[in-house]
Amino acid sequence: MAGSSFGALFAVHTWGESHGGAVGCVVDGCPAGLTLDLDAVQHELDRRRPGQSKLVSQRKETDEVQVLSGLSREGVTLGTPLLMLVPNKDARPGAYADLADLYRPSHADFTYEAKYGLRALSGGGRASARETVGRVAAGAVARQVLREVFAVEVVAWVDRVEAVAVPEGAVDEAQLSATDVDAHPTRCPHPPTASAMEEAIVAARSDGDSVGGVVRCVARGVPAGWGEPVFDKLEADLGRAMLSLPAVKAFEVGSGFPGTRLRGSTHNDAFVPGPAGPRTRTNHSGGIQGGISNGMPIRLRVGFKPTATIFMAQDTVNRAGEASTISPKGRHDPCVVPRAVPIVEAMAALVLLDHALRHRAATL
Amino acid sequence: MAGSSFGALFAVHTWGESHGGAVGCVVDGCPAGLTLDLDAVQHELDRRRPGQSKLVSQRKETDEVQVLSGLSREGVTLGTPLLMLVPNKDARPGAYADLADLYRPSHADFTYEAKYGLRALSGGGRASARETVGRVAAGAVARQVLREVFAVEVVAWVDRVEAVAVPEGAVDEAQLSATDVDAHPTRCPHPPTASAMEEAIVAARSDGDSVGGVVRCVARGVPAGWGEPVFDKLEADLGRAMLSLPAVKAFEVGSGFPGTRLRGSTHNDAFVPGPAGPRTRTNHSGGIQGGISNGMPIRLRVGFKPTATIFMAQDTVNRAGEASTISPKGRHDPCVVPRAVPIVEAMAALVLLDHALRHRAATL
Amino acid sequence: MAGSSFGALFAVHTWGESHGGAVGCVVDGCPAGLTLDLDAVQHELDRRRPGQSKLVSQRKETDEVQVLSGLSREGVTLGTPLLMLVPNKDARPGAYADLADLYRPSHADFTYEAKYGLRALSGGGRASARETVGRVAAGAVARQVLREVFAVEVVAWVDRVEAVAVPEGAVDEAQLSATDVDAHPTRCPHPPTASAMEEAIVAARSDGDSVGGVVRCVARGVPAGWGEPVFDKLEADLGRAMLSLPAVKAFEVGSGFPGTRLRGSTHNDAFVPGPAGPRTRTNHSGGIQGGISNGMPIRLRVGFKPTATIFMAQDTVNRAGEASTISPKGRHDPCVVPRAVPIVEAMAALVLLDHALRHRAATL
Amino acid sequence: MAGSSFGALFAVHTWGESHGGAVGCVVDGCPAGLTLDLDAVQHELDRRRPGQSKLVSQRKETDEVQVLSGLSREGVTLGTPLLMLVPNKDARPGAYADLADLYRPSHADFTYEAKYGLRALSGGGRASARETVGRVAAGAVARQVLREVFAVEVVAWVDRVEAVAVPEGAVDEAQLSATDVDAHPTRCPHPPTASAMEEAIVAARSDGDSVGGVVRCVARGVPAGWGEPVFDKLEADLGRAMLSLPAVKAFEVGSGFPGTRLRGSTHNDAFVPGPAGPRTRTNHSGGIQGGISNGMPIRLRVGFKPTATIFMAQDTVNRAGEASTISPKGRHDPCVVPRAVPIVEAMAALVLLDHALRHRAATL
Repeated sequence: MAGSSFGALFAVHTWGESHGGAVGCVVDGCPAGLTLDLDAVQHELDRRRPGQSKLVSQRKETDEVQVLSGLSREGVTLGTPLLMLVPNKDARPGAYADLADLYRPSHADFTYEAKYGLRALSGGGRASARETVGRVAAGAVARQVLREVFAVEVVAWVDRVEAVAVPEGAVDEAQLSATDVDAHPTRCPHPPTASAMEEAIVAARSDGDSVGGVVRCVARGVPAGWGEPVFDKLEADLGRAMLSLPAVKAFEVGSGFPGTRLRGSTHNDAFVPGPAGPRTRTNHSGGIQGGISNGMPIRLRVGFKPTATIFMAQDTVNRAGEASTISPKGRHDPCVVPRAVPIVEAMAALVLLDHALRHRAATL
Repeated sequence: MAGSSFGALFAVHTWGESHGGAVGCVVDGCPAGLTLDLDAVQHELDRRRPGQSKLVSQRKETDEVQVLSGLSREGVTLGTPLLMLVPNKDARPGAYADLADLYRPSHADFTYEAKYGLRALSGGGRASARETVGRVAAGAVARQVLREVFAVEVVAWVDRVEAVAVPEGAVDEAQLSATDVDAHPTRCPHPPTASAMEEAIVAARSDGDSVGGVVRCVARGVPAGWGEPVFDKLEADLGRAMLSLPAVKAFEVGSGFPGTRLRGSTHNDAFVPGPAGPRTRTNHSGGIQGGISNGMPIRLRVGFKPTATIFMAQDTVNRAGEASTISPKGRHDPCVVPRAVPIVEAMAALVLLDHALRHRAATL
Repeated sequence: MAGSSFGALFAVHTWGESHGGAVGCVVDGCPAGLTLDLDAVQHELDRRRPGQSKLVSQRKETDEVQVLSGLSREGVTLGTPLLMLVPNKDARPGAYADLADLYRPSHADFTYEAKYGLRALSGGGRASARETVGRVAAGAVARQVLREVFAVEVVAWVDRVEAVAVPEGAVDEAQLSATDVDAHPTRCPHPPTASAMEEAIVAARSDGDSVGGVVRCVARGVPAGWGEPVFDKLEADLGRAMLSLPAVKAFEVGSGFPGTRLRGSTHNDAFVPGPAGPRTRTNHSGGIQGGISNGMPIRLRVGFKPTATIFMAQDTVNRAGEASTISPKGRHDPCVVPRAVPIVEAMAALVLLDHALRHRAATL
Repeated sequence: MAGSSFGALFAVHTWGESHGGAVGCVVDGCPAGLTLDLDAVQHELDRRRPGQSKLVSQRKETDEVQVLSGLSREGVTLGTPLLMLVPNKDARPGAYADLADLYRPSHADFTYEAKYGLRALSGGGRASARETVGRVAAGAVARQVLREVFAVEVVAWVDRVEAVAVPEGAVDEAQLSATDVDAHPTRCPHPPTASAMEEAIVAARSDGDSVGGVVRCVARGVPAGWGEPVFDKLEADLGRAMLSLPAVKAFEVGSGFPGTRLRGSTHNDAFVPGPAGPRTRTNHSGGIQGGISNGMPIRLRVGFKPTATIFMAQDTVNRAGEASTISPKGRHDPCVVPRAVPIVEAMAALVLLDHALRHRAATL
C-alpha cells in the first residue's frame, strides 16, 4: 500500500535512489525449489543498462546484481524473500548541483517537492529511470518461472520512434525472439525501420533534443482462464504496470484506440475450432476478454513521451517562484524507448506470473 | 485481493450479477460526519441507467439505490461501511437461454468458463455492464467528498464516436459541467459533433451493428502533491481504473499517443509563475509528473471498443468445440460510450479520493 | 485496508450496524462450482443468535440469511462475490435514548466518539456483537469448503465460565462434534461442568452482574505445510482473528501461558513415526511450528471478559465531561461465552481456508 | 500478502536467512523530512543482539546496520523506501551439518520442509530469531516517529521467567524507562526478581535445558481514537504482531485471562473526569475499548515458550521417517525472553505508528 510494492502473490518491493548507495528489490512469493539462473537475471539488467550503444546515455553503470537472501548455496529458491541489490557505482550527485534551485520542465522535481516537502535527490531520486533496476531484476525471476513452469514467453520490441513506425504485419509476432529484437541497437526487429529510427534519434541528439515512441509487447502461451472479471482485469493490471513506468503516457491492449473506430461486425473476434479448443479468427481482443485470457497471444502497446531532459534553454521557475531559464547539461538518452524494451517485458512478466499464481489458488 | 475490491483507504467492494437478486457495493473508509446527498447518488445511477434515450438500450431498470448501513438516521456518514444495493427488477435470465451453448464472439462467455469451470450466468454475470452500478454508487459518494472537502470536480464527456470527433479545443474544459454534457443524449457537449455522432449511432443500429468511441475526462482543483512516485503513480491507478471497465481497450493521460510523436522541446511543459505557485504553460503532462499531481487539470482519454452484441449472424463455436453460427436478439446499446461517461467520472473520483486520503496520512 | 475486511484470497468484508437496516458480508474469493448448503449457513446463524435459552439475551432476532449474488439458480457458487444479508427485524434504537449522553463503562461509546467525532449508534453500532452475523455467515461458507475440499473440521466449546473450568483431559478433542457441544445451553460438552457453569451464569444474572470465560477450539485434519514463516504465521493470523472479536482479551495457541512455565525438556514435542509421516508425542506446539502447520490438531484458547453491560449503578462521565452515574436497562447476556462458540469456529475457518488457498498458490 | 510484509501505511518488508549474506528490511511509508537518528537504530539492534551477557548466546554478531536508500546525505528521510541491511558476519552453516537429516523437536525444520518441499537452511532459515533484525531496525524508525511526532513511548520488560514473576504493582509503569529495564541482564526492572530470574536461567543452562517466560509492554501517550472497530482492532493487530514472533504462544491485552475470572461489576473501568477528558479509574481494558484506544496506557503481555534448542538427547525421526535421537550442540540462549524485550517494543511501535497514520488519513 505504501507505493513501492507490486503484485499480490508474487510481490515485488523496489527501493533505491539514483544517486544513493544502491538500488534493488525484494521479491516475496517466489515458489521454492527453482534453480535460479542468475546469468539470465544479469543479462536482463545489462539490456536495461545505459551506455550500450551510441544511441543511449553513456553513463557507466556496470549494474552487477547481488542476491543476499532467498537462495540456497546451490542457487535454488527457498520460497523466502529474495533481496536483489545493485550498487550505484557511478553516482555523481554533484553533477546536478547547479540545477538544485530550478524545477526542470516535465520532470518530477516540482511534484516531489509538493508531495514530500523537500527537493528530490539530484538525479531524480525515485523518479529516475534507475528505479527500474529493481523491476527488471524481479521481472527476470518472474520470466524464468513463467517459462519453466507455465511455458509462457514475453517479447517486446520498439514499434515506433517519433513518426517512424514498423509497417503493420512486418514483424512475425509468433516467432519473434529477444535475440531478434536485440540485433539492432534500436531494438526494432524490422531492419529498414530500425535504420530510419536510428536516424531520427541521431538527428534529435544533434539538435540537443529528444524523441519518444511506442513499445509493443506480446505474451505467448498464456492459457485461457487467467485474470479476474472486475477490477483486477488482466488488461487493467497490465495497464497499471506499464503506466507506472517513467515517461509512459498511453497504453493499448488488442485493437486499442484504432479499434474504437471500427464497427462491431468488423471488430468482433469470431471463434473457430482449434486443435486445443476454441481460437479466434482475429485477435482484436488482444488475448483478453472480460478481463480473462482466452488462450490467444496477449498483445499490448505502450507509449513513451520524449525524454524530458534536453540540452536547450527552457523557461521555468525557481523554488522562490520566480521566472528563470534552465539549460541542462550531462548525459541522457535522447530516446528511452530502446532501453524500455526489457522493462516492459519485466512488468508484463510480473503481472502474468501473479495472475498465474492467483489462478492456481482459485481453482479447486 | 480477491478481485472485486478497489482502493486502499477509500475501499470499494462490488458484488452482484446482472440477473441475480441485486447489485451493489460496500464502501469502506468513507470519513465520518458527512451529510450524504442520496439524491445525488441516485442522479448518477440514473445517468448510468439504460433506457434514457432512443440512443441506448431500452431495458427498464429503475435502479433505485438503498443504503442499508453506514448512515445515521439523519443521513450522516458514521465512518463505518456503507452497503449500497440496487435490486434487479428487470431480470430476464430466460432471454438468453438459446445462446447458452454458444460462445458469443468478443464476450466473456468463453473466458469465464475457462476460469470458473462453469458457464457465466446468462446476461453476462459479472462481465455485464450492470456490474458498474456499484462503481457508480461508490463513485457518487467519492465525488461528494472530493467536492466538499477538497474542492475537486470531475467531468467527463464523449470525445469521439466511431470516426466523429470533437475538434481540438472546441470544448472549454475549464468551465464544462455535467449539465452541459447531459444536454445532448450523446453526452457530447459540442452540438454539431453531437448531431453527427447521433447519426453514426443510429446508422449502426439500423444495420444491426455497433460503434465504439472515446470518453475524455478532466479533474479540476487537484492540488500539487497527490500520488506516489513508483507503482502507484496517479496515472497508473487512473489507467487501471479505466481499463477495468467493460469494453475499454485504451487509455491516455495528457498528450497520450499523439505526444509520443513530438520532440521533447515541444512536449516539455515550461513552468511559469502563477498566482498560487508554479503553473505550466502547456499541459502535455496531463496534470501529473512522475506519478504526482502538479496542480494543473488532470486530463485523460479512454477508448471503448464497439459493443460486442450485434444483431447479425456471426461465426462461433459451441461448448462442444464445433463450428456454429450465432445471431443474438434482445436489447443492447449500439454504442456504450454515452452511458460510459458517468462511469468514467466515478472511477476517476474513486482514484482521486483514495490518493487524497493517502496524501493526508503521509504528510506530517 | 479500511478496517472491515479480512483474508487475502478468501476475503470477507462485513458491514452493518446493530440498529440499521441489515447486517451482512461480502465473501470474495469463494471457489466456483460448490453447491452451497444454505441450511448449514442458517444453522450457524441460529447458533449465534440471542434468545436461544434462558441463559442468553431474549432479543428476538430471527436472522434469516439472504444471498443476493454469487450463486447460480441451482445454488452453485459462481466464483463471484457472495452478498449475504440479514435484516435487522428487532431494531429498537429508542431503547438507548436515555443513555445517549453518557459513556457506558468498558463499552466503545467513548472511543467511537474519539475516533469518528460522533456518537456511535445506540446499541453499539459496529461494536455490537451483531456485527458478528456477517462473520458467522462467511465462516459457514468457509467451513463447507474446508470440509468438502480439504477434509478439515473445526470445533469449539466452552472451556471455562468465571472460575468453573472443564478438568484437563475431560473432553475427547479427537471425536468431539458440534452436536455434542450444543447438547447443553452452556455449550460445554462436559455435563457436570456445564451444570456448574449454568449456576454461575444464573447467579450473576440474579445479581444484575455478568461473567466471562474461555472458549477452546480445535481444528482437525489440517495437513502439514499450511501457514507462513514470518508475519503471517498461522498462529498470528488465528490470534488476530480471535482478538478482533468483541470482548476478547486473551489468546493462546498450544501450551499457551502455562507452557511458558515449563522447561524445554518437558515442553518440546518429540517426533515419532506415524502412519502418514512424522507425528509428535505431545502437542504443546498446538499443531503449529514456526508459523506452519505440522499435521497435528491445531489447538487454541480465547478469553472473553465479562459482559460490559450490567444492571447496576456505575460511575461514569457524560459528554460534557462531568461525573455522572449510569444504570443500564434492557436485554443483555450475562455471559457471552456460549454464543461465542460458533463465532470462534467461524473465525478459525476463515483463517484456515485462506491459508489453504495461499498454500495452493505457492506450491508448484 | 506474500508473508514477509507488515503494516498498511507504514509498511515493513523483512528478508534474509540466518546464514545467508545479510538480513534486513525495507521500510516503505516513513514520512519525509525526519532526521533519522541512526545511532538509536543501532542501539536497538545492539539490545537485540546475542552475546551481550553471560545469560545469552555467545554468538558474535556485530550487527552493524547500513541504510542504502531513503535518506538524504544529511540523514533526512526522503519519504521513499529505506533499505536497511545487516551483514551476517558470523555465519557458520557447517555447524548444523550433522543435524541436516533430523527434524529438531519443536523447531520448524519439519514444517518448512512440508511447506517448501526442501529443508530449511541450517540454522533455521527464516525461522531463526535472526529474522527479527529487520523488525528491530524498522521498529527503531517507527519509535522515533512515534516519539517525535506523536509523543508516544513504548517500554517493555521481563515480567516472568519460568515461575519467577514480578510481584503485582512492583514496577512503576508510568515512569519506567528502557534504561531502567536494561540495568540488569535479565531486563527485569525489579532487582530482587531479576536476581531470582538469573538463577533460574543459569540453573537451566547448567542442566543443558531451557526456560520460557513473559514480556510485559506498555505504550504511554497514545491519544484516544486510534484503531479500527472490526477486524483491525488495535488489540488484534498488536496480538498478530506479537504472535508472529518466534516462540510466542500467548498474548493478553489489559486484564487478559485473569480478567475472564472477574465479574463485570469488578472488571468494568468506570469513567472519571480528567484534566484532558475522561479517564478510567481502573485499566482492565488495557487502554483499548472496542478496538480503539481510549487515552489510557496500552498494556499487554506476551508469553514465550522455553527455547526449543536444548543440549539433551531427544527422540525424533529422520527425513526417511525412521525413529532416531538428536543431541544438539552449539550456542543457544537457555532463555530468549531478555532479548525479546526490544523485539516486542519494535512490534508494538510498528502497529501503533501504522494506526497513527491511518487515523490521520481518516480524520477530516
